Amino acid sequence: MLRLGVVGYGYWGPNIVRNFSSIPGASVHSVCDVDARALGMVKKNFPKIEITDDYDALVKSRRIDAVAVVTPVSTHYELAKKALLNGKHLFIEKPFTASSAQAEELIEIAERKKLTIMVDHTFLFTGAVNKIKELISDGLLGELYYFDSTRINLGLFQKDVNVVWDLAPHDLSIMNFLIDRPPVAIAATGISHFDDDIENVAYITVYFSGNMIAHFNISWLSPVKIRTTLIGGDKRMIVWNDLVSDEKIRIYDRGVDNGHADATPVHPAQMSYRSGDMWAPKVEECEALRREAEYFVDCIDNNRKPFNDGRTGLDVVRMIEATVKSLKMGGEVVYL
Amino acid sequence: MLRLGVVGYGYWGPNIVRNFSSIPGASVHSVCDVDARALGMVKKNFPKIEITDDYDALVKSRRIDAVAVVTPVSTHYELAKKALLNGKHLFIEKPFTASSAQAEELIEIAERKKLTIMVDHTFLFTGAVNKIKELISDGLLGELYYFDSTRINLGLFQKDVNVVWDLAPHDLSIMNFLIDRPPVAIAATGISHFDDDIENVAYITVYFSGNMIAHFNISWLSPVKIRTTLIGGDKRMIVWNDLVSDEKIRIYDRGVDNGHADATPVHPAQMSYRSGDMWAPKVEECEALRREAEYFVDCIDNNRKPFNDGRTGLDVVRMIEATVKSLKMGGEVVYL
Amino acid sequence: MLRLGVVGYGYWGPNIVRNFSSIPGASVHSVCDVDARALGMVKKNFPKIEITDDYDALVKSRRIDAVAVVTPVSTHYELAKKALLNGKHLFIEKPFTASSAQAEELIEIAERKKLTIMVDHTFLFTGAVNKIKELISDGLLGELYYFDSTRINLGLFQKDVNVVWDLAPHDLSIMNFLIDRPPVAIAATGISHFDDDIENVAYITVYFSGNMIAHFNISWLSPVKIRTTLIGGDKRMIVWNDLVSDEKIRIYDRGVDNGHADATPVHPAQMSYRSGDMWAPKVEECEALRREAEYFVDCIDNNRKPFNDGRTGLDVVRMIEATVKSLKMGGEVVYL
Amino acid sequence: MLRLGVVGYGYWGPNIVRNFSSIPGASVHSVCDVDARALGMVKKNFPKIEITDDYDALVKSRRIDAVAVVTPVSTHYELAKKALLNGKHLFIEKPFTASSAQAEELIEIAERKKLTIMVDHTFLFTGAVNKIKELISDGLLGELYYFDSTRINLGLFQKDVNVVWDLAPHDLSIMNFLIDRPPVAIAATGISHFDDDIENVAYITVYFSGNMIAHFNISWLSPVKIRTTLIGGDKRMIVWNDLVSDEKIRIYDRGVDNGHADATPVHPAQMSYRSGDMWAPKVEECEALRREAEYFVDCIDNNRKPFNDGRTGLDVVRMIEATVKSLKMGGEVVYL
Repeated sequence: MLRLGVVGYGYWGPNIVRNFSSIPGASVHSVCDVDARALGMVKKNFPKIEITDDYDALVKSRRIDAVAVVTPVSTHYELAKKALLNGKHLFIEKPFTASSAQAEELIEIAERKKLTIMVDHTFLFTGAVNKIKELISDGLLGELYYFDSTRINLGLFQKDVNVVWDLAPHDLSIMNFLIDRPPVAIAATGISHFDDDIENVAYITVYFSGNMIAHFNISWLSPVKIRTTLIGGDKRMIVWNDLVSDEKIRIYDRGVDNGHADATPVHPAQMSYRSGDMWAPKVEECEALRREAEYFVDCIDNNRKPFNDGRTGLDVVRMIEATVKSLKMGGEVVYL
Repeated sequence: MLRLGVVGYGYWGPNIVRNFSSIPGASVHSVCDVDARALGMVKKNFPKIEITDDYDALVKSRRIDAVAVVTPVSTHYELAKKALLNGKHLFIEKPFTASSAQAEELIEIAERKKLTIMVDHTFLFTGAVNKIKELISDGLLGELYYFDSTRINLGLFQKDVNVVWDLAPHDLSIMNFLIDRPPVAIAATGISHFDDDIENVAYITVYFSGNMIAHFNISWLSPVKIRTTLIGGDKRMIVWNDLVSDEKIRIYDRGVDNGHADATPVHPAQMSYRSGDMWAPKVEECEALRREAEYFVDCIDNNRKPFNDGRTGLDVVRMIEATVKSLKMGGEVVYL
Repeated sequence: MLRLGVVGYGYWGPNIVRNFSSIPGASVHSVCDVDARALGMVKKNFPKIEITDDYDALVKSRRIDAVAVVTPVSTHYELAKKALLNGKHLFIEKPFTASSAQAEELIEIAERKKLTIMVDHTFLFTGAVNKIKELISDGLLGELYYFDSTRINLGLFQKDVNVVWDLAPHDLSIMNFLIDRPPVAIAATGISHFDDDIENVAYITVYFSGNMIAHFNISWLSPVKIRTTLIGGDKRMIVWNDLVSDEKIRIYDRGVDNGHADATPVHPAQMSYRSGDMWAPKVEECEALRREAEYFVDCIDNNRKPFNDGRTGLDVVRMIEATVKSLKMGGEVVYL
Repeated sequence: MLRLGVVGYGYWGPNIVRNFSSIPGASVHSVCDVDARALGMVKKNFPKIEITDDYDALVKSRRIDAVAVVTPVSTHYELAKKALLNGKHLFIEKPFTASSAQAEELIEIAERKKLTIMVDHTFLFTGAVNKIKELISDGLLGELYYFDSTRINLGLFQKDVNVVWDLAPHDLSIMNFLIDRPPVAIAATGISHFDDDIENVAYITVYFSGNMIAHFNISWLSPVKIRTTLIGGDKRMIVWNDLVSDEKIRIYDRGVDNGHADATPVHPAQMSYRSGDMWAPKVEECEALRREAEYFVDCIDNNRKPFNDGRTGLDVVRMIEATVKSLKMGGEVVYL
């Protein structure tokens, strides 16, 4: 039985507690928060779970095997380090850390102490992302041409991090999970509309070696909510709309063939197009976080390295750092 | 009666001929093309219009007052220059020219010879764009925050120009028409997936002085067709979907107020949001090109300078040049 | 403090228990079910609530003021009658009873014993229905022409009642709530595709006195889920799509004017049409059942008759009876 | 070369003239209309076609082989009869005639004189309807359960016929084309909102022998335009949305299995559901009327009976007659 201590009971913490409480092989032993009202909510909903505002005590407790860090990113490094140094496995919110140096240090400690780090990129456990992974692996899309995501809505402006730190971890982790080849460089633009110097709109281009590009349009300032990703390959193309309950993933048997053209300036030869059927495979519905919690328990029980480990989290942090650096320079290319 | 000579009878030429043939105060005298089949189509559909493959003769004819250049952009400069030097008014397809130097020279000739240049940015004559112009002018949106357009679909790969020269003139001319302040700099990224070194996907950021940004996502390689523009202001925001026949323009009474926050790292203060009604004003349906043709006749008859004159066309060409320059450098900022 | 006993803990019972447990002025004292597993779920989620399989004991307990009947409709009459005869107020699922005679008897008992009956037509407490009520009351639609609802999806075939008893109570109760004038007659058609003689598709027309008609298309056998209601008036028309989270209600400033025509067989004169703006008012989000639970407590505390009382429930049952009668005769008109 | 005379140049006539003018093997010799303005339009757009207001002359001309009747339905019988009696083949708008007796007489004349009648149910020549026909014929849907169509919008109120005569011929002809078994009876309801006693809203149920039902919701008084047909079978179900350009036809691998249930009143056993993939086959785009015109020429040239002949038109007229009869009786079943 994996006994979990949870630090942070704000927006996401209740989901962590609920899921780890309901899966086999795990239990939530205690929850820590600095806010007494938050602890009151824990007491009300989970009477058997201990509450505390003393993180140092929690992290030293012998009755806890793993710590889930569910706090703002600025506090991740310190909280996670204490957990690891006290021999606790780590389940930590995305983004992993506030800098790649912090992430590297945590990874080093975990490896030395043979502890597991899992970074909570929840999307990687959804039915939709796994179905797309399967389609790409099966070669249905052919060689990949682009990955183009729009993740915009009104709201949840953060006060401590910009829209890149807030939203890009989703797209970057999904992209890294789906795309086999490594990104090479990033160019990003954006703007802060308010006096806080925190960008609330950003446009990110990721260059890959070879014939592929990625782009993210992220914003806290859109009147409508959009969560759409287009993935184009030379054989087929996908449109993934995460906001619909049915037909989230559409596969288009469409593409272009680079014809051998006898072009003239006046009548340039055209490419030829394929425009065939569309197909929306059934996507298994499940609570992604529950799957992930089960996977965390399984990795620790069987001493397996999770695919969403510290290095996966570090990759995302490095890309965010590069994005912010490029953004601050107005769009200049930053190599990874 | 304005007598028009048309050069180029490919994809768009028939629309030019049909509209100038059907409005009061204008007639199409002759059509020139190098392709005999194209001229055959003219003869069949418009038996009274003369056909020729001799542009020099057309441009010197005393029975022609104005020339419409409806050919690929690479030929614009030469054809337009001949028309102007022979004293003909000029109606010319977008983009105006293949370089800003060419545009400047044509403008100079037209001014010297007191001739009218109109660049055919047809979108500026649609009911939708004019309704948005009206809404912005009336202050409904308040101070503008962003202009974000997606113009993607599968196809019509060009052999002589990249996707920026092909699609961006639409968005740039609309943006310049709607937004009062001048753009300052451009950063663009993109890719050519095929062996022709012609970019078929591009992402363009336009910086403005002050608190505003624009972005265009343009592509020839999307499985689905999207023509959506979001325009955000501090009072209201617009979503313009040009592909629907009804409710093209939606105005959202939504926004964000920058609260004075007593933020803490653990519980950062949030902005406050307004989320009110949505309103879709009726948009007048009309054939934009017909309106534009009438306006061309009117400008010449009354010796008025069109708002979409050579300088408007030049502005767009300059921005395309900056875009392509930035794109070739991987995204570096290019000042206008 | 209103102390509630709940009978039935299947699909809807948990929502009843949760809501009456969380509002001020009420508490759930005990839950009765014949299924031990259901009672186990109660114990797990609400440790303080008593569980029992003895309804007679529950209904006689002095520590219970009101009974919520959340069981299949075939059992409503007997369970409700016992509750009323034992002096308990009644909160009962829709449809109220399996026949109008049963409903009349229950109403009679409640009136004699000065007890409150509330029939749980939850939709009447949603933000959407109340916004439409407000729009109609304010005269925005003018004189009403039609009410046309489609409520179809795949599934939840019932074994004891047909699709009319299952789905029509929603539409009928909403219609009766929104439309001021009384229905006059019903004509209905439908089919049972399986060997159980339980109709799974039905089409219902409701005639009103004067210039108005209603129609419901209900089905358990549609591949897609649709929940759309059109309400047309001589001034404006509404489209209510209950499946979208945003812009559920759209008000169209559209209509027709009955022109004085000099019609001829060859060129008949047309009506004239208005086709103006569309407007989607913000709809307040809330949990309808919570509102309804609060209203139940309020009605009992203040000795007020609920608008969704036994007579409201009886009206719906009478219309269902007429519908089924017409359906069995292939569509003949049945007067109410 | 089939030489056509066209009578009626209102809304649809120009399409008839244009298509028969542009296909091989046919030419339009003359157009007849009582409206001089209509004839002026013919002259302008088709200078070579003769114009006349003398139908008797047209119908007797030796230079005409076939007559296209494109006038209001009330005039069909007389115009068509004259054409047939003068030995002309007949291409006639839907609905075929204003009564089944008229249709029967025309069919009898045509058979006696060995002339071809084709009723212009244009939809039967669209890519969408033919793709659905193919899917049904291939057995993809299995045994058919229902055919449910909604055809509503604002407008084009007719002064001489009601909404049933105006819109139902589309749905009835499509249904008869797609469904192999004969309809048995009809029950219809509807309303006339204006003082003309012409129904503008109607709801039509068609009963078939066995396990199948059809329903049409047709209206001139909807604020939004809907053209959606659901066709359900025991294996798969189709949703056909004729208003979208892409993915008009969606095939759902969804259905229901009638489980052997051990039902109890409290916990009735459920059916089991299949909810699989969705698939949108590519639908060939074409101008249906052009295909139909070519088919008319082909049938006459090769002395073949068209599938959309007079009997097909008569079937539709009979169903409309039954519909109107049922409607006038408030919904009573009328057997065919």
